[in-house]
Amino acid sequence: MIEPLSHVVFGLTVLATAVMAASAAIQGARHTLDLFGATVIGVAAAVGGGTVRDLFLGRVPVFWITDLTYLMVAIPVAAAAYFVATRLPSGNGRRLRLLMQFDAVGLALFTLVGVEVALQMETHPFVAVIIGCITGTVGGMIRDILCNVTPSVLKEDLYATISLVGGGVFVGLISLVDQAVALVTCFALMLVARLFVIARMSQG
Amino acid sequence: MIEPLSHVVFGLTVLATAVMAASAAIQGARHTLDLFGATVIGVAAAVGGGTVRDLFLGRVPVFWITDLTYLMVAIPVAAAAYFVATRLPSGNGRRLRLLMQFDAVGLALFTLVGVEVALQMETHPFVAVIIGCITGTVGGMIRDILCNVTPSVLKEDLYATISLVGGGVFVGLISLVDQAVALVTCFALMLVARLFVIARMSQG
Amino acid sequence: MIEPLSHVVFGLTVLATAVMAASAAIQGARHTLDLFGATVIGVAAAVGGGTVRDLFLGRVPVFWITDLTYLMVAIPVAAAAYFVATRLPSGNGRRLRLLMQFDAVGLALFTLVGVEVALQMETHPFVAVIIGCITGTVGGMIRDILCNVTPSVLKEDLYATISLVGGGVFVGLISLVDQAVALVTCFALMLVARLFVIARMSQG
Repeated sequence: MIEPLSHVVFGLTVLATAVMAASAAIQGARHTLDLFGATVIGVAAAVGGGTVRDLFLGRVPVFWITDLTYLMVAIPVAAAAYFVATRLPSGNGRRLRLLMQFDAVGLALFTLVGVEVALQMETHPFVAVIIGCITGTVGGMIRDILCNVTPSVLKEDLYATISLVGGGVFVGLISLVDQAVALVTCFALMLVARLFVIARMSQG
Repeated sequence: MIEPLSHVVFGLTVLATAVMAASAAIQGARHTLDLFGATVIGVAAAVGGGTVRDLFLGRVPVFWITDLTYLMVAIPVAAAAYFVATRLPSGNGRRLRLLMQFDAVGLALFTLVGVEVALQMETHPFVAVIIGCITGTVGGMIRDILCNVTPSVLKEDLYATISLVGGGVFVGLISLVDQAVALVTCFALMLVARLFVIARMSQG
Repeated sequence: MIEPLSHVVFGLTVLATAVMAASAAIQGARHTLDLFGATVIGVAAAVGGGTVRDLFLGRVPVFWITDLTYLMVAIPVAAAAYFVATRLPSGNGRRLRLLMQFDAVGLALFTLVGVEVALQMETHPFVAVIIGCITGTVGGMIRDILCNVTPSVLKEDLYATISLVGGGVFVGLISLVDQAVALVTCFALMLVARLFVIARMSQG
């Protein structure tokens, strides 16, 4: 049912790692952490979801131990995002919007990567959707807990729901269409849905 | 020393999963979460203790990945408990008592299941008692942390203690009597002890 | 590159376990926990860092399950430290200083043990330094979160930094000099650096 397509999944995971590292470093800047603290939170958020996924599935050593790429991406991206965020004029919500938009990309990408990894390990499709949701939401949850903010996944209906629905549609689609098509379609769906929710919250 | 008796342990784990899911969903209702948030907390609390146990023991993929039953029980039970709890007249402590009684059943059952699983993996009996206590208390701890309540295990002497003593008596009994007898005896002892503590707290 | 030297690492881990158990029990006493709660926090802090390290590396069952020594050390040491701490005259900062000094010893020892274990599993040296930092800081983080205190690792620049630099120097030194020399040198460097930071903080 599913072909490895591992280079695409690898590329998406690296991209998701970068956006979550940036999102968490921006959150750190908003909470007046220094460069070091913001980088720690950036890395923890970037690899947290995949780490929990790997532990639950028994894929150990976890992914960032066996492949240095993820840490090598997360650390400089978090530091760079911190620099940019601390130089943005504050008080007009720009940093918050940027943070939420990066988070939306990370949520969508990590969800699909998590589903993909779970399916490759031949879990039940329903379990794969749950693993995708964990992979997609845990990084942001770690970021928010470390910054002492209530995690979006508990506060907002349309956070975990978008992850679960997106993962579910992906599981359905890959048995019908080419896997790359399924990936792109579901990514676009989830991102649009989440950005729409964010835009409405900003207006609200 | 110990026979698998795996169908009994399986049945008890399913039962414990259901009561912890209900207890956590009721906690969610008390903290004015919506249906979705209460269900997420219900599932996390129901499978959290066993997940940590499996990770520490190296039993991976963790139990709810290899057997769908647990999620299939926890999700509808949490949702149903939320519906009932939100319809109970509030303000008279009924939901809190119900939550604590379900929690007491979960504490006792998960403790015994955790000890049993650890012994089957041939850990030292002392370690088995610790693993039982972790299995019994972590679900409620996750529930309380997500609802921003101080976990009972840190607040109350007679929470973890009941789990440790019950697990210890169980480890001793199974070398003396039939395993089913040991299970029932220890479950009854722990439940009575915990319900007694709860009743005294309500009066206090 | 690295010889097992496992009896030295074992001895250092037991020592680090004892000081972290003491440090966390003293923290518990400062937060007016009772003996039981302080012991639970002492044990969790003492084995927490190594447990996360083992999970990430896939060394399961985790170390305190396969070797009873660690629990047998952590439990009485935590209880004894609680007794001493509750009998120290309070209000003059003696307990806080004692807690921070034990924590400094634990930070240095656990970091080096974590690096050592990671290198023995042939991770990349850079990853070994990260694993060392996790092993060194997670125990204190668990202690602080359970006592509802902001973890030092997020609050202070010179906490995780000392762990990372000490681990990095250790990775460099062991390819140049005898491993025991590298261990002692790095331990002394980290401890002196951390005690210096603590002394400056006390002077305020």
